Amino acid sequence: MHDRQALDAIYAHVQPLLGQGRVADYIPELAHVPREQFGMAIVKLDGEVLQVGAAEQRFSIQSISKLFALVLALQSEGEALWQRVGREPSGTPFNSLVQLEAEGGKPRNPFINAGALVVTDVLCSRFATPENALVGLMRRLSGNAALDYNLKVAQSERRHSDRNAAMAHFIASFGRLANPVDRVLDAYCSQCSIEMNCVELARAALLLAQHGSVPHSGERLLTPSLAKRISALMLTCGTYDAAGDFAFRVGLPAKSGVGGGIVALIPGRCGICVWSPGLDETGNSLAGTAALEMFTTLTERSIF
Amino acid sequence: MHDRQALDAIYAHVQPLLGQGRVADYIPELAHVPREQFGMAIVKLDGEVLQVGAAEQRFSIQSISKLFALVLALQSEGEALWQRVGREPSGTPFNSLVQLEAEGGKPRNPFINAGALVVTDVLCSRFATPENALVGLMRRLSGNAALDYNLKVAQSERRHSDRNAAMAHFIASFGRLANPVDRVLDAYCSQCSIEMNCVELARAALLLAQHGSVPHSGERLLTPSLAKRISALMLTCGTYDAAGDFAFRVGLPAKSGVGGGIVALIPGRCGICVWSPGLDETGNSLAGTAALEMFTTLTERSIF
Amino acid sequence: MHDRQALDAIYAHVQPLLGQGRVADYIPELAHVPREQFGMAIVKLDGEVLQVGAAEQRFSIQSISKLFALVLALQSEGEALWQRVGREPSGTPFNSLVQLEAEGGKPRNPFINAGALVVTDVLCSRFATPENALVGLMRRLSGNAALDYNLKVAQSERRHSDRNAAMAHFIASFGRLANPVDRVLDAYCSQCSIEMNCVELARAALLLAQHGSVPHSGERLLTPSLAKRISALMLTCGTYDAAGDFAFRVGLPAKSGVGGGIVALIPGRCGICVWSPGLDETGNSLAGTAALEMFTTLTERSIF
Amino acid sequence: MHDRQALDAIYAHVQPLLGQGRVADYIPELAHVPREQFGMAIVKLDGEVLQVGAAEQRFSIQSISKLFALVLALQSEGEALWQRVGREPSGTPFNSLVQLEAEGGKPRNPFINAGALVVTDVLCSRFATPENALVGLMRRLSGNAALDYNLKVAQSERRHSDRNAAMAHFIASFGRLANPVDRVLDAYCSQCSIEMNCVELARAALLLAQHGSVPHSGERLLTPSLAKRISALMLTCGTYDAAGDFAFRVGLPAKSGVGGGIVALIPGRCGICVWSPGLDETGNSLAGTAALEMFTTLTERSIF
Repeated sequence: MHDRQALDAIYAHVQPLLGQGRVADYIPELAHVPREQFGMAIVKLDGEVLQVGAAEQRFSIQSISKLFALVLALQSEGEALWQRVGREPSGTPFNSLVQLEAEGGKPRNPFINAGALVVTDVLCSRFATPENALVGLMRRLSGNAALDYNLKVAQSERRHSDRNAAMAHFIASFGRLANPVDRVLDAYCSQCSIEMNCVELARAALLLAQHGSVPHSGERLLTPSLAKRISALMLTCGTYDAAGDFAFRVGLPAKSGVGGGIVALIPGRCGICVWSPGLDETGNSLAGTAALEMFTTLTERSIF
Repeated sequence: MHDRQALDAIYAHVQPLLGQGRVADYIPELAHVPREQFGMAIVKLDGEVLQVGAAEQRFSIQSISKLFALVLALQSEGEALWQRVGREPSGTPFNSLVQLEAEGGKPRNPFINAGALVVTDVLCSRFATPENALVGLMRRLSGNAALDYNLKVAQSERRHSDRNAAMAHFIASFGRLANPVDRVLDAYCSQCSIEMNCVELARAALLLAQHGSVPHSGERLLTPSLAKRISALMLTCGTYDAAGDFAFRVGLPAKSGVGGGIVALIPGRCGICVWSPGLDETGNSLAGTAALEMFTTLTERSIF
Repeated sequence: MHDRQALDAIYAHVQPLLGQGRVADYIPELAHVPREQFGMAIVKLDGEVLQVGAAEQRFSIQSISKLFALVLALQSEGEALWQRVGREPSGTPFNSLVQLEAEGGKPRNPFINAGALVVTDVLCSRFATPENALVGLMRRLSGNAALDYNLKVAQSERRHSDRNAAMAHFIASFGRLANPVDRVLDAYCSQCSIEMNCVELARAALLLAQHGSVPHSGERLLTPSLAKRISALMLTCGTYDAAGDFAFRVGLPAKSGVGGGIVALIPGRCGICVWSPGLDETGNSLAGTAALEMFTTLTERSIF
Repeated sequence: MHDRQALDAIYAHVQPLLGQGRVADYIPELAHVPREQFGMAIVKLDGEVLQVGAAEQRFSIQSISKLFALVLALQSEGEALWQRVGREPSGTPFNSLVQLEAEGGKPRNPFINAGALVVTDVLCSRFATPENALVGLMRRLSGNAALDYNLKVAQSERRHSDRNAAMAHFIASFGRLANPVDRVLDAYCSQCSIEMNCVELARAALLLAQHGSVPHSGERLLTPSLAKRISALMLTCGTYDAAGDFAFRVGLPAKSGVGGGIVALIPGRCGICVWSPGLDETGNSLAGTAALEMFTTLTERSIF
């Protein structure tokens, strides 16, 4: 099936799912987002955009920011970054602090919160305001100079960050944090609050689909090898503790956020983003995951 | 670079690694295998075979048998199998029994020992002699009617199976084993002792590269969707606790064994097998992993 | 309050509790014991016996056997025993196999199942039939030459011992078991099935109350120091994962069993045993724990 | 042997131990305390004081403050306190954050850091300056109106409190902290920095030896039952992760601190304090533990 047909079929099929799932409610700003919304966009390497539903509606990218923060950190640190954060799946949610404790304060991968805090610490050492550096990257990748982070969301997030504070202090207690915990948490919360829409995120994902260069500008940000490796990491670790199941069902590198967004890609072909705020019990967008599974089934275009 | 050139370049480059690593030594039959050996084979969908080194030397496939035992179990149980075993990466080795305990005796995936014991239990319910059923499958897939399991290795393995016995009894204590522990362990040890060479295993992997049908016979064993899903599982869980790192470095679905073999595949293109008995600290063939990483780098043909 | 008055007051007060709790039901022989029964006995150093309720009704001593198996093992091994088993509380039930895994197969203390299996292994190396050796000790301590283990209960227990088998194989996988797992499990299950009544067990506990000698015979089995140390171990580890709470509420060294018995002692004064089959959620006799708490409250005679 | 003789014998015997062990070095103020010092004091219910060595040398009481903070919290909250903190031993050090995670943020007992932070939170809700409330209690119990906390030590401790901050934020993330993390940590660090000597601490322990009343004033602070229960908690949880071993070897209720002090008591008889800064690998004073073991052996006066 063609991508256009697939999008339309998906849009029809996900309708019954749109009242389901549970919206992230740990901060009021996320809790009030209407759950029934759905958008999806595909941006091809040649720039063609296919979209359906609320694909131009901005949402809080949340953990999707971890993917692009990693891109920034790898640009500045190279492979040395892996001395500070691993690249293995983390097992169960139950294990988050367990594993930090068992492994001397080195987080398992950059896509769990503990690992993203270390990545943010790296960015705090490199940039005066890492949140602005990340906003800058997202503007370049999406081609939209107007996008920004949401200060109110960032501040609300910061007030509800005891668990992240616990992890940051714990990592610091192993001597593994270079900047003050408060500064790292401030930057981290700002990054999570960046607002983008499906079209912008699908376009940003072309960086990886195109193996490290920005399609509309030709600018090279990563070596092909490193871009492929980031995609591999998305597949094994990008969807919280459901990565195995997600790879099994969808078969694409992807990174999700509790704002309901999931960004994915088909190497050498296109960036994809889907958004729907209702989450399943693993914290991934319920309708979004279903849409992506349908997409690879209908188009027969997973990476496997 | 072409596959033939790549194989030759790999063969030259791995020579310094062949004295390294540590041979599995928990049973005498494995401990005595000379560590310096190396072989690699690629079998394409059209049947063309490329090989280098000791690619026709038989070795003990060990945990590679878990991949094909899973194929048999999925053929007989379909998706219902996932009620008995999960499909998530397992985290650290440290966690093996921890996670069984925390998750009510349901193993995380079919490629860790606990999960493979459950898969074997399924086969024990289905076949009078599951080891023979698996040998039969391997004969069909490899096109070699003479291959078999090694009784002496199986018996030696059985005598050193306290840890597997602990896991099997533990699973049984949750009411999650249908057959007697001793029967399951007998079959499991026999399966692990099957002996094959790189060419045979690379040919067997075509089943997945070809999305579920046997290339030389055309026989369909799995739906395309299920074949792809098994490949996804190999990527996230196929190389013990190094799956994240392996995906990052190699970028191909693979399953390894402590006999030093690693079977891999490029979907829609070829099956691959590499063998070298020296293991790295994660239990995967040291030279084998290096060879596969070199292969995807030189040919620029990972799945990402 | 005097002991006699206290016993009568306790008997009146526990009546409403006798329908409560849950009888151990993992084997039919235990599941069928009527839950409403209650007995309690105090035997003083001078031999005086005070009793109330069904204090002469025999019951399955179950884990109380761990206390006397430890006495036998310490007699034969002395302090060297502590190289094979620790003497620290075990934390949560959840941790049983976790801690074995984290601590190289050395159980935390001799009163959890894993530790008792190691103690039984020691006895298997020392005695042709360890269960008979333990029965012999219990006969000497209780002054009743007729008591024995219950073969039917032992066999039933043996058929439901997957979890203990898991632990025994796991310990063996660390090279920490000298005898075959099956032999250790046979002996262990026989020991647990010994049948005694409250008067007999209270008299047996005099060994520790009297600091190592048998009151009615004067025979010395343990040094005073070792006897006191075993009492200390009962206080910190004797009532499964409720040891802290039990010490807090009752304040006496004690060892409980899932048959509903709890044996306790006041050093230099008396042995105590209470029995009631209904268990609380920590596996200790519900009415029995309440009776002991009432006893130390009414008599103001805890060890603190 | 009499107490006086025992003290002298102990003093002679511990001399070879005084160069051993390792002084707590996480803050400079503790790291610079000379390791060779040793003092011990016994204060009887009638007020008689026996002492040896540097028994009037002040030291940082550190975790011994947890015992008296618990007394204050129980005075104000009564048994309701146990809804916020448990009373079970904590298992291994490895488990500290593991168990908080597994048990919903409720610390296992008031003598591990996590539990003491909750106790301090309770005091923060009750007192404007909980550190002053605790100093006030210690003055009353020791009869010395001049003792105080050490501001420099408190501030240094506060600057090195990442691990405690991690635990406090983690507990807060479960909604289990009523006051801001910073305030709780400030009070906690001040409490730990109180400075006292062996005679003063042995006298303070009379509160528990005398079952809840202050011997020199007759003032009742706790019911006898509650005083005994606190002693039971000291026995099962008072010496970090060595409580089982300590109970086994020493057989007295005790609470230790990384400043090298250990306070203990014989119910109905005396308070005891020993101090020597060199710590064993479990964080308890090496010479202090040996001295207490020798004391109960020589006087034959453990609680068992």
